[in-house]
Amino acid sequence: MNAENIVIATAKERNLQIRYVRAPDGWVGPENFELTHGDVPVPGDGEVLVRNHYLSLDPYQRRQMIPGVEYVRPLRLGAIMEGRTVGEVLQSQHRDFRTGDFVYGDFGWQQFGVLRGEEIRKIDTTLAPPSAWLGVLGSPGITAWVGLLHVAKARAGETVIVSAAAGAVGSVVGQIARLSGCRVVGIAGGPQKCRLVVEELGFHACVDYRVADFEAMLAQATPDGADVDFENVGGTVFDTVLTRMNDFGRIALCGLVSQYNLREPQGLRNVATLLNRNLMLQGFRVGHYKEQREPALHQLADWVRQGKLRFRETVAQGLEKAPQAFVDMLAGHNVGKQVVKLV
Amino acid sequence: MNAENIVIATAKERNLQIRYVRAPDGWVGPENFELTHGDVPVPGDGEVLVRNHYLSLDPYQRRQMIPGVEYVRPLRLGAIMEGRTVGEVLQSQHRDFRTGDFVYGDFGWQQFGVLRGEEIRKIDTTLAPPSAWLGVLGSPGITAWVGLLHVAKARAGETVIVSAAAGAVGSVVGQIARLSGCRVVGIAGGPQKCRLVVEELGFHACVDYRVADFEAMLAQATPDGADVDFENVGGTVFDTVLTRMNDFGRIALCGLVSQYNLREPQGLRNVATLLNRNLMLQGFRVGHYKEQREPALHQLADWVRQGKLRFRETVAQGLEKAPQAFVDMLAGHNVGKQVVKLV
Repeated sequence: MNAENIVIATAKERNLQIRYVRAPDGWVGPENFELTHGDVPVPGDGEVLVRNHYLSLDPYQRRQMIPGVEYVRPLRLGAIMEGRTVGEVLQSQHRDFRTGDFVYGDFGWQQFGVLRGEEIRKIDTTLAPPSAWLGVLGSPGITAWVGLLHVAKARAGETVIVSAAAGAVGSVVGQIARLSGCRVVGIAGGPQKCRLVVEELGFHACVDYRVADFEAMLAQATPDGADVDFENVGGTVFDTVLTRMNDFGRIALCGLVSQYNLREPQGLRNVATLLNRNLMLQGFRVGHYKEQREPALHQLADWVRQGKLRFRETVAQGLEKAPQAFVDMLAGHNVGKQVVKLV
Repeated sequence: MNAENIVIATAKERNLQIRYVRAPDGWVGPENFELTHGDVPVPGDGEVLVRNHYLSLDPYQRRQMIPGVEYVRPLRLGAIMEGRTVGEVLQSQHRDFRTGDFVYGDFGWQQFGVLRGEEIRKIDTTLAPPSAWLGVLGSPGITAWVGLLHVAKARAGETVIVSAAAGAVGSVVGQIARLSGCRVVGIAGGPQKCRLVVEELGFHACVDYRVADFEAMLAQATPDGADVDFENVGGTVFDTVLTRMNDFGRIALCGLVSQYNLREPQGLRNVATLLNRNLMLQGFRVGHYKEQREPALHQLADWVRQGKLRFRETVAQGLEKAPQAFVDMLAGHNVGKQVVKLV
């Protein structure tokens, strides 16, 4: 079977797509998206046609929907919803790619897509299954590595707090912290996630932020305070973490997922703690640490190969499930990396 | 006249003292202090007796009154109110000091005090008058230097915002920023202070935070945004400054003077800006940058000598005025360094 045959075959298929059609006011929901059908595109010179196997759902995508948000590329209404995917090359007009290669790219919420060869990357599916390249070996994993080791500069012997500890980024942060000789305390929603974080991912402790005595529980889990906070959540969770920070602590501010769906953000109460305890807070995006990408990936792949770094996924089946899965992820229903399986 | 003669003379004097006797609930007032009389102390071996000439009033002292505040030494009820002074040596039992030397020390709110020689420092009154060693050549000046150049790392060509621009620290921050090649925009309360900040201290602009269109005025004064915020104020001023910060901006968090007298702190609304714009915030205290003290002082003294660094003072007359002057300073009634003249 050669490339031309495949294209003839796929050209007969419809290309299921999901468009972002309405800006949310408060909680995002399926009504903000629309299912449409397009043609399977034909790659031009230097381009590659890909059948997407997995679509990545990430909290930062909700930030892209906030009106007037700056420094994060806003989504365009009516366009195919943006998103990262891994998939299989069906036809290549670029010399670096061949039919059957597995690649990573920003193909968006659709079954088939075309990008230039320079915009995509081959992935090694012998090291880890394709979907892992959207999680532990993708942006979430590299974000965890950069934020913990380069932004917050966690060192062996320190105590690290990680919020959204069962999520795609947090679950990797905690494991890297443990592998780096830190004591690591997770924060997650519900006893099931907390158990997973400790028993499967090897965190030293995990505290359920939904319990009434959350602050007391967090204090008990951090008897020596905390030197680093890898902050994914914001709101009252962040305010509570601040009560545990030691003098000269560092906060890697990676996300504020508790805030994205609120009409009025909660803000931060314990501002004085930042002053009183000489804390450093750094907002960051992994895209600004390009020089760390290769060393991070190298280290993460080594750990995956050695079985030291575990990864969990929550998989929705079928592109049409993507909107609801996106909403559920923002509500914390997922464990580990949330993906949508498209084939 | 030898030292013994002086001691005999002063021993006849009473030592006027002000004690901190009641913790404030909300705004601090004169009722939180009490005027008492003590004896003029006699220095023991290795100690020095000093007649205080100027007492320093500093906003951080209000932080020391906040119940449960950590990492700032709390004030003790009933004790002589803590405070920095400059004064004249009346009698020395320490070989490094002689009668007539001018010294700096934490003698507290009293006319006479005794400290060990190791706890005080000589000051050079030929370079600047004694009170300047509590301001531009004291902790406020060194705080300005450390915060701007070592915490926020301001560089030539950048735009710097300074809140409480007419205050002891802010007025020096802005002048250092200008001398370092930055564009510097102050924030101060009222048109009179703003005029002084621009016309006398050489800031490029100053915005009155009390006007209704403060945010629009600040935007107009920072057409290229701001790269550095030297934050002394907090509350809505800080939230407004955040709207002007550029991507990768740095915030030296030095004080939150708008918050110290509030029963319920206002908190911070624009937390997402810290994330969206990749901002760095560092809470700091000058005491942790001891290795910067000498280089800072050297540079500040040079600038004072060359007439490049101006300093302004608000002087209250007489120790008994200290409580009201302290309250007035926290309300922003002072211009430049607030001191109390004791002799």
